[in-house]
Order: sequence, then structure tokens, then C-alpha cells
Amino acid sequence: MTESQKVAVGIVGASGYGGVQLVKLLSEHPEVEIVYLGGDSSAGKDYADLYPHLGHLIQNKVEPIDLDVIASRCEVVFLGLPNGLACKFAPKLIERGCKVLDLSADYRFTSLETYTAWYQTERDDGAIASSAVYGLPELYREQIKNSSLIGCPGCYPTASLLALSPLIKQGLILPETIIIDAKSGTSGGGRQGKINLLLAEADNSLGAYGVAKHRHTPEIEQICSDLARSDVKVQFTPHLIPMVRGILSTVYATLRDPGLVREDLITIYNAFYRSSPFVKILPNGTYPQTKWACGTNLAYIGIEVDPRTGRIIVMSAIDNLIKGQAGQAVQCLNLIMGWDEDLGLPKLGFYP
Amino acid sequence: MTESQKVAVGIVGASGYGGVQLVKLLSEHPEVEIVYLGGDSSAGKDYADLYPHLGHLIQNKVEPIDLDVIASRCEVVFLGLPNGLACKFAPKLIERGCKVLDLSADYRFTSLETYTAWYQTERDDGAIASSAVYGLPELYREQIKNSSLIGCPGCYPTASLLALSPLIKQGLILPETIIIDAKSGTSGGGRQGKINLLLAEADNSLGAYGVAKHRHTPEIEQICSDLARSDVKVQFTPHLIPMVRGILSTVYATLRDPGLVREDLITIYNAFYRSSPFVKILPNGTYPQTKWACGTNLAYIGIEVDPRTGRIIVMSAIDNLIKGQAGQAVQCLNLIMGWDEDLGLPKLGFYP
Amino acid sequence: MTESQKVAVGIVGASGYGGVQLVKLLSEHPEVEIVYLGGDSSAGKDYADLYPHLGHLIQNKVEPIDLDVIASRCEVVFLGLPNGLACKFAPKLIERGCKVLDLSADYRFTSLETYTAWYQTERDDGAIASSAVYGLPELYREQIKNSSLIGCPGCYPTASLLALSPLIKQGLILPETIIIDAKSGTSGGGRQGKINLLLAEADNSLGAYGVAKHRHTPEIEQICSDLARSDVKVQFTPHLIPMVRGILSTVYATLRDPGLVREDLITIYNAFYRSSPFVKILPNGTYPQTKWACGTNLAYIGIEVDPRTGRIIVMSAIDNLIKGQAGQAVQCLNLIMGWDEDLGLPKLGFYP
Amino acid sequence: MTESQKVAVGIVGASGYGGVQLVKLLSEHPEVEIVYLGGDSSAGKDYADLYPHLGHLIQNKVEPIDLDVIASRCEVVFLGLPNGLACKFAPKLIERGCKVLDLSADYRFTSLETYTAWYQTERDDGAIASSAVYGLPELYREQIKNSSLIGCPGCYPTASLLALSPLIKQGLILPETIIIDAKSGTSGGGRQGKINLLLAEADNSLGAYGVAKHRHTPEIEQICSDLARSDVKVQFTPHLIPMVRGILSTVYATLRDPGLVREDLITIYNAFYRSSPFVKILPNGTYPQTKWACGTNLAYIGIEVDPRTGRIIVMSAIDNLIKGQAGQAVQCLNLIMGWDEDLGLPKLGFYP
Repeated sequence: MTESQKVAVGIVGASGYGGVQLVKLLSEHPEVEIVYLGGDSSAGKDYADLYPHLGHLIQNKVEPIDLDVIASRCEVVFLGLPNGLACKFAPKLIERGCKVLDLSADYRFTSLETYTAWYQTERDDGAIASSAVYGLPELYREQIKNSSLIGCPGCYPTASLLALSPLIKQGLILPETIIIDAKSGTSGGGRQGKINLLLAEADNSLGAYGVAKHRHTPEIEQICSDLARSDVKVQFTPHLIPMVRGILSTVYATLRDPGLVREDLITIYNAFYRSSPFVKILPNGTYPQTKWACGTNLAYIGIEVDPRTGRIIVMSAIDNLIKGQAGQAVQCLNLIMGWDEDLGLPKLGFYP
Repeated sequence: MTESQKVAVGIVGASGYGGVQLVKLLSEHPEVEIVYLGGDSSAGKDYADLYPHLGHLIQNKVEPIDLDVIASRCEVVFLGLPNGLACKFAPKLIERGCKVLDLSADYRFTSLETYTAWYQTERDDGAIASSAVYGLPELYREQIKNSSLIGCPGCYPTASLLALSPLIKQGLILPETIIIDAKSGTSGGGRQGKINLLLAEADNSLGAYGVAKHRHTPEIEQICSDLARSDVKVQFTPHLIPMVRGILSTVYATLRDPGLVREDLITIYNAFYRSSPFVKILPNGTYPQTKWACGTNLAYIGIEVDPRTGRIIVMSAIDNLIKGQAGQAVQCLNLIMGWDEDLGLPKLGFYP
Repeated sequence: MTESQKVAVGIVGASGYGGVQLVKLLSEHPEVEIVYLGGDSSAGKDYADLYPHLGHLIQNKVEPIDLDVIASRCEVVFLGLPNGLACKFAPKLIERGCKVLDLSADYRFTSLETYTAWYQTERDDGAIASSAVYGLPELYREQIKNSSLIGCPGCYPTASLLALSPLIKQGLILPETIIIDAKSGTSGGGRQGKINLLLAEADNSLGAYGVAKHRHTPEIEQICSDLARSDVKVQFTPHLIPMVRGILSTVYATLRDPGLVREDLITIYNAFYRSSPFVKILPNGTYPQTKWACGTNLAYIGIEVDPRTGRIIVMSAIDNLIKGQAGQAVQCLNLIMGWDEDLGLPKLGFYP
Repeated sequence: MTESQKVAVGIVGASGYGGVQLVKLLSEHPEVEIVYLGGDSSAGKDYADLYPHLGHLIQNKVEPIDLDVIASRCEVVFLGLPNGLACKFAPKLIERGCKVLDLSADYRFTSLETYTAWYQTERDDGAIASSAVYGLPELYREQIKNSSLIGCPGCYPTASLLALSPLIKQGLILPETIIIDAKSGTSGGGRQGKINLLLAEADNSLGAYGVAKHRHTPEIEQICSDLARSDVKVQFTPHLIPMVRGILSTVYATLRDPGLVREDLITIYNAFYRSSPFVKILPNGTYPQTKWACGTNLAYIGIEVDPRTGRIIVMSAIDNLIKGQAGQAVQCLNLIMGWDEDLGLPKLGFYP
């Protein structure tokens, strides 16, 4: 069914922004072939009806979601579905021998209680869920390599955790002082006709949302707590920015050792991410622009220390739909398959 | 020289964005008449050459800056000049009997040492400077009424101080925990051909700048310290947002009393700003969008409390060029002249 | 029920972008008082729930649409409803003595056959419809003054007709050569959750739509034909531009007399619009930017002649929601009531 | 000096937007190696100082422009310089055995008189100039393959000529009726600090410029005349659009045969571009969005016929910096070197 040597992959939920990124990235990936695109409301349509600019390369139809069909054709399945659906499908796909990369929140939590508390969804797939690995390769590279079920991180947690991890892992900050002020382009809201995401509403405007209650909070806290080996709470505030793609997380924390200077921290970060091909620590006094990451799987990190206040300020920029979503899933796929971690993933954005 | 009963006003530095806001606001103000528009590099040009859309209403030429001419014609002078120039001109205008509203940083500081440390400009106008009042009417209304020299606040300090003042004045927060994450449209960078302000560079991108060293930091700290009657240091991080106008300041601080809830704080804010016609405290769970303030002299303030962390998060949105600059100067003028504080100032933005 | 001397006005369909412009403009108008805001899906809500930034000035609730109630309270009614609804309501409001300004297409056509052909709506209000006047004051000022039912023009026709009228009226061009290439911000698509109007889709992109079949075509042709006293067909192509507000119409036509130069035409346009306070003809070589008109009821017109091709190119810029919609309706109201044509209407945009 | 088998290429004028696109495209091209980056004002700087996001992949310094050094190192040289400079350098590089791809206007004209009339630059390199080929592969594929000096087309001519060529070549339209209404993102204005290109000025605004006198006019006319084998004049009007990248050309012309329908023309276009891997003719009723082309070397073309007026309307969308500039130069390189025409060039844009 597939070209010789290529791995057959399918995408369930191919019509949204996560789906179309996957379609692009997997189409250009040298080792895989897309053999299935599935959707619910879009089933039966040509994919080119949804995205006419892809008509010259993607001739697939969107097919209905039939797990037997999917499993018979695909070695690897990407799930790009609303929260609460992947946990219905993934167990059956795993059972049928597929590897599953889930882009929703369903398999990000080690505690289903936390999941249920924040997502208001009851679950009965605890056994499978406990086998899932959090798909942030920079932190869980080895575990990902040996897993068949990946809960790919949210876009905000990716940007925020890449900024925070060296500090927490090495005990450099007071965890109770962590504040994450995050800013995202509107594509993070998905391809749905919401009034607040209209250009007429969102352009030339700026505001916070989900203050003190956004669902990415427990996800960030879970990983921070895992790194710190103690319970960490963070202050997380997302903002909607009048741009299409990109996230900037500005992270504040108080240093334990007020004598540390910027150069020290740049050295620490560079060491921490030495084996991570997609994390780029910026030199002294350079702060990241989200545009630099746009169209790539990179995370750019800038670091500043304020000796007046004893705080470190870390800024991380990613493309919310690539490193924050589809690209990261492909990065996990590369690890699972034993390929180079950066195989087929873009590292050079177009500028401007 | 002027229409009967109207107050003659002049604008020095009329060609920039601050200048053109003043031209608009003062043209529509019922009690003043613009009798002088001055500039340096633009002297001799028709104002309509700089802003063709105003040609039908503003027939003035931009005149060279001659203090005797200005003083002979104007009762009130607005200075919209780069930092370090107002302190050369203001003393001579005051001497000649003018009232002066300065939009630069020159008269914002009670300590000229602080000014010199952050702005690298030596000054010898200490006597005059000590008579200047910080032009934030919501905090210094009475002093403004009796002053002839106003140092109008910067755009970031305006948004940040309106968010912080009730908390500091009433001792509700731990001052050492204050973090201000501020976001501004690019018009704050002025009408000058800088690469980083090009649409091609700034659009669809986002980044921080001046981290831990922006010059608005000491200005915010001075007023906070004045309110707190003790030395306050803040963490202030500005960001450039891909939009024309607007500032959002997201302010974080730890509450002294973790039992306070959002409703308490909304009540406190409403009381604090009861006599301030331009500050609007939003109801429970509503957070400000900068677009709401765009084209007005209003500041919208939203309040959230996070019981998980004990922090308050306050968001304030203004139009950086109106309440953050020209509108505030006109508000001060109204106070100085004994007019209604909101005379001639816009309160209803166009939407969307 | 109303303040003494003020005219009581109501808005049916107050929740959309046309509605909220009317709310702003009428709130600031010195001679009217808003006594009714009506809607269908939004009935029962506070207006401030729809537009929180207006909460400090507009305390009205959105009321259900009850024609008797409306007529009992309002002297003048603005209808901001989808096409095909105004023709149900207007006859009954006229009957009850109201003056009606309709923002939809229902009363723009002298021929109901044309309307039905392009809008697929059968009508039985022919008698009333024939009494309606096309609400473009620059062309039909006197008729508007004496009418009780105004069909306010569409946004594209306003921009296009202001550019074309002097040429057609005075027979300066070959009518069969008229091409109108129009560009609009996305607010023209209304406050509805359409995918193509999302910021993520529409920002940083550009495309034509409705090519050779947009419903504003017959509206433009009707007025052109009326001016020419012969049947005129135009080529009209609208484009969606990644901005919130504004329309630019670039109009091309072949001059009958190839000896005419730009200066001649500027003179002709200035004469044609001498009595029109909202049309501004730009001087030699200046072309309009839509931003100049933003927030105002102005139309800026720039003119160029190409001696190489014998064509005139006219560019007109308006704010699609003000001169292209709500502001024009208020301008018509001013005429109907015998007030100054420009009473209460903004003439100075904020810049930038 | 270079990796075995790779072709050594240099870029003179690497600091601008054209340069940085070339750096990206050539870095990812499988058959070339960048061995020289040159500039004037930026000479001596690290390339990563100009574009920090490229620091992880491009360690080159910008070198001064020394033709002997360039020729000694490079087999192929891209010139990305202001108009009037390439004609000084190219002859010497050709003499020294280099192949030259010039992105400026200097080698686009078969008549140096036309060049001098529109560009006000005297030239004495007529012999070399007459050997140059216009680098639009879709029209001059065979000539490009055998040339050492390519004058790469401007961005507007690329979009416009791809839309017009089938019509002109096959005599389907009346050439004197051609009107090109073109719309470009602001990156076309280059990386220079011009006031009108500031985000604060250009965002949320729209205007025409260079009406009846833009320098791309004679370039379009030259190629149209060549195709028509007679003198063709076009009406060309460029507009600045508030977006970073992308050009849409909306082209109008009167059909000779009013009986032709849209389907006929789609068939004709598909045939005309059958061997052109980067031109995509859209199906019935689909019109191109510039975003579809963004980040690719593709041109999307949509076609409409208006039976009411007898006109054809053709819309073509490209990325102005890729197919409109750097990508097209690489496409020419591929032809010159005998490689596949689409080698190393992107065909799948990121969306949204």
C-alpha cells in the first residue's frame, strides 16, 4: 500500500490547523507516507476543498473515522481531535498495534484526577493512560523512544517549560515565584468561527484571557513538579496577540543565588540543551522575536538577569503550530522510529 | 489674536505622533485655539504636507522654534520634543508667563539625579524642575490644578500606575513582588524610520525589549514609592506588539491578605477612582481589550485574584497616544484652567 | 420620554457593526436621544454584554422587535438588519408615522425586479419602495430632505460612486470602460463567525471575491445609469484586505477627451463637490490612504490621468462603517431633520 | 573550498530581504554551497548580527565587495543590489567566468534607452546587456538555460505576466484594454527605514502609489509586446497592502471573442503552463489568496469571465520575495545548471 520502506501514517482530525501542519510536515518528511486523512464533519470532502492551495500535492479525500480501517492501513496514527475524544480512540488503536501521537490534552496527565478536574471529562482508560509519555523530547527523550502512546504538549506549556526547565531542574529559582506571562497568535484558537477570533475583533487589539484558570496551568505544573521533585504552582496568564502564529512566554522567577549573572545562566542553558537540536539559546542581550521561529520547529530562548530585583527573566519564542503542536509530534515520531530527531523538520524560517 | 474667550495654545514639536494627537484633540476642544505649531526639521512646511488628511482643517505652517514668538502668542505651550530638550525651553517659557505641559521625560522626576542616571543628560534647571508636577490627574489632581509646569507621564507608567495605585496606596500587596509585563503597539516608537518598527519586521511578530533596563522603570518606581511612603522597586518588561495603538499592562503582585476576593478588590478600585472620569473598572471576570480604549482618553481596568497562588493580577488598557500621551496632557490642561476635567476629551471609541 | 428638544431615535438591529457605529454616533449627536435598541438573537441582553467598553455610557437593554413599541417611542428608526427584513418592517413603521433609515439593500433599488434578481427575495411593498430615496447626499441631497424612507447605500457603492459621479454626470468618460477595483477591510463582512474572516485566515493575506457577481454591482450601475441618463454597466471586483476598517476604490475609465490633464479634473471634482462637506479632493499627486478616513465620515478622493493610455484613475477612500454605513445614515438624518448636514459627524480621524 | 560536487555560489547584497531569502533557499538547496556573502554598509559584520535567528546555521561574515575575490571563489553570483550597481559589477564578473543572476532592474531591458528613460542611469555595458535573458522561466525557459547573465524580473511583472501571457500570446484579448491592479505587501519596499513603511503608518491602511508612472510598467510592456509581436501599453497601478509578504495582481482585459467561457480559458491556461511546475491554475470559481503562495515559489492563478461586460478577470498570487524575487532567481539557476527546474524550491506553504 505504501512506497517501499516508507512508514504508513494517518491523521485523524486532519481538517484543523494542527491537521494541516501535519499534512505539510509529513508530506515533506523523507521516511513517511500519508495513507489516511480522517475527519468527522469534513468526511467525504476532498482535502483540497478545505485547503485549495494544497490541491496540487494532496489528492486525498477526508475519510470517516473507522478505527479498523485506520489500523489496517497505518503504522502510526496522529490524533488531532478535540479534548475528550482521543481517549476514546487511542486505546483501540494501541490494541490494534498502532503507535499513537495525540495532539489533544487527553494523554498529557499522569493523574487522571487532575485531567478530570480541569477538563470535566470522566475516563475509563486509566491503564492505557498510565503508559503514555509526555511528548516534550527535550525533557523526556528516552521515554518517548520506548513508548507507543505520546501525549503531545500544549503550545503554551512547550514554550513555558523550555524556558523554565533548566532553572527548576537545577534548583536555581524559588519555585513559588514563577510567573509566566504568555502571548499567542490567534491560530491557537483553531479553525472555528468564533467572534473573538475574527480579524475585525482581534486585529489591532490585545487582551488577556483565562486568567488564573487556563487549562494549560496544571500541565505546566505537573512537569515542573516532576522536575523539581516537589509540588510547584505557577502563575500563568495567556494573552491573545493580533498575529497569526507564534507564542512568546515571558517567564519571571527569583534566583536563589542573587550573585548569578546573565553569562552564567546562558552557559547553564546551553549545557542543558546541548543535545537538543531545536533549542537555540541566544547570546548576551539578544531577545527572541516570535517571527524568527515562524515556520520552524525551533525554540529561541533569551535570558536576562535583573540585579536590582534578583530576578531572572527568560523569554522563549516558538511557532505555536509547529514546535507547539504538529512539529513536536513529528519530532516524537522521529524518536519513536529511531530516526534522527530532526529528520524532515524545518530549521530555517522565512524572514520577514 | 484668538477668538474671544478661547485660550491660545501652541505645540512645539508638532510633527510627531504626540503632536498630531494634540492637533486633533485641541482642534476639537471647545475652549482653546491653536495659534502656533512649531518644529525643527519640519519648520517651514505646511502642516498638511506632513499629514495630508488634515489639510481641510489645519492650514497652519510649521514655524521655527522661537521662544519669544511662542510666548507672545500662547498662554499655554505643549512641548512634544525628544528627552533633554524641554529642559532647555521650559524655564524660558515659564519665565515669560506661559504655562507648560511637557510630554517628554524631562519634568517627570523629583530627583534630577535619577533623571541624569537614566537619561544621561546633565541639567541646570533644578529650581524650575522642582516646581513641576507629575501629570497623572488620578493621583495628583490638586497639585496639577495649581501648577504651571507639568511633566506628563510616559505611556507605560500611565497604564501601570493606574493598575497599581489602589493596591500600593492602601498597602494591599507586598511591594517587592510587583511585576509589570507591558505590551505596546508600535506607534509608541514614534514617527521615525527605524528598521525594527517597519511593518515587514514588526507585523506578525512579538518580542520583549529593554528588559530590566527600560527608562520607564524609575518613573514607575518614583510614583509607587511616593504612594507607599517607602522605597519600591518593580520588575518592568515592555513588549512590542504588532498593532498600531494601545498598551496593556498586566500587573502581578502578592496580596498581603490572601483572604481578599475579586469582588473586594473591584469595590476598592471603584472607590479609589470614584472621582476619576476616565478610569473604568470592569465588572467581575471581564478583562480589558486595548481596542476598547483606542481613540479615547479612557483606561479600562480588569481585576483577577488567584486563590491558588495568593496573587492579584490587574490588567489595564489605554490608548498609548491619548491617555498615554496627548489626551492626558489635555486632561491636565483642563485641570489647570479650572475646566471640567473631561472637557473635549473622547470617551467613546470606534469599534471594531 | 426624551430630553426636551431632542429627537427620539431607535435602532433595530443594534448588535452588529453597523449598529454599534450608530450607537456611538447617535450618542454623541447633539440633537438626538437613543430611546430604543432592538435585536432578535440578542434581545434581553444588556447592550454592555455585547460591547463591554460601552457599559459606562450605554445602559440600555436590547429589546425585542415590537413595531408598535418602536413607533410609540421613536420619531426616527434606523434599521440595521439582514437584507430581506427591512422590507417587512419599514412599511409598518412608515404607516405609524416614523421616518425610516434603512442600512440594508432593501430600499436601494428603484426597480424591485433588479432587487429580486440579485437578492432572490420576493417583495410586495412596491408602493412604499417607490417612495424611497437613495441615501447618498452628495447626489440626492434635495430628495433626501423630503423623504421619510431612505435606502442607505452600500459601502462599496458609496466609495465607487463618489469617485465616478463627476465623470459620468459631465460625460467625461466612455461609460463602457469603467472598471472598479475595490478593496475593503474585513469588518464589512459583519460580526459573524465566518472562517474566512478569522484573523488566522484573513491576516497577511489578500484575495478577490464575488468577481463578476457581487450584489453591489447593480446598485452602482443603477446610480451611474441615472446620472448618465443611459444604461451603464460597470466591472466591479471587491477584494478582502487584512485590515479592520476602510475601503479604497480604484476606478479606471477612458477619457472622452484625451487632452484633459490632472489639474482640469481636480478643478472639476472640486466644483462638483463644492457643497459637500464630507468629500475632500486631494491636491496634485496626492493619493488617499484609507487610514486618513478612518473614524470619520469623510471621503478622500485622489485623481490621476495617464496620458500614455488616455485613462483617468480615481481613488476614493472611506471608512466603510461610517461614510460607508452608519455615518452616512446620520448624514441623511441631518438632512431630513433640516439640521446642518455635518452635525455631530466626525471629520478628524485619529492618526496613526 | 567547497564540498565535493557542490556548486560554489556567492551573494552580493546579502543584507536585504532579497538577500536573506537567497541565504535561506540556497542553504537548503542540495546542489550548492554558499561561499561568499557580500555587502557594502554591512561589510565586516557577522551575518547573524543582521539576522540573529540564522546564527545557528549561517556563520559567515559579510565581506566587502571585491570582484576578484568573488570571481576566484564563486561559480555563480547573485546580485541583490540597488538599481544601477549591477551594471557596474556584472560585466567584470562575466569576464572572469562567473554566471550572474541579477535581481535588480539593470538587465531586464532589451532596450537600454527604455532603461535609461525610466531609471535615469546612463550605461556603457551595452554589449553585455544585450546578452542578458529575462529570467521568467515560464516564458523564456530555453534562453535561460543557455545564458550566463539573467535579469531576474520584478515582483509585480512576475505576477502580472503570468496572468497575462496566455491571453496575449494567443491573441485572446484586445491589448489596449489591459488594466493591472496590483497589490503588494510592504516587504517589497525593502529593509529600509522609510516612514511610509512603518507598521504605525502602513498597518490598517491601504493606498495606491506610483499611479501611471511605476517603473515596473515598461518591464511589463516589453514582455507583453514581445509576446504580442506588437507594441502593447498597459495600465498598471500598484497598491501597498498592510501585510508582510505577497502580491495579488488583478488583471482586466476585453476578450476578442465574447463567446469564450471560464472553462475554455482554464483549459487554455492549463495547457499553456503544462510544463511549468510552479504555476497552478485554480479550478472553476476558486480565486487565489496570497497566503496560499506565501513561503513557496508557486504562482496561483484564478480566472473569471464576465459575460455581462465581455471581460476576462485574471488574478495571480505569488510570494513577492520568492517567486517574485529570490526563488525565481534560484529557479533560473536550476535551469542554467541543467538541474530539475524545481530543485530545492518550496512548493508547500505553511497555512495559516
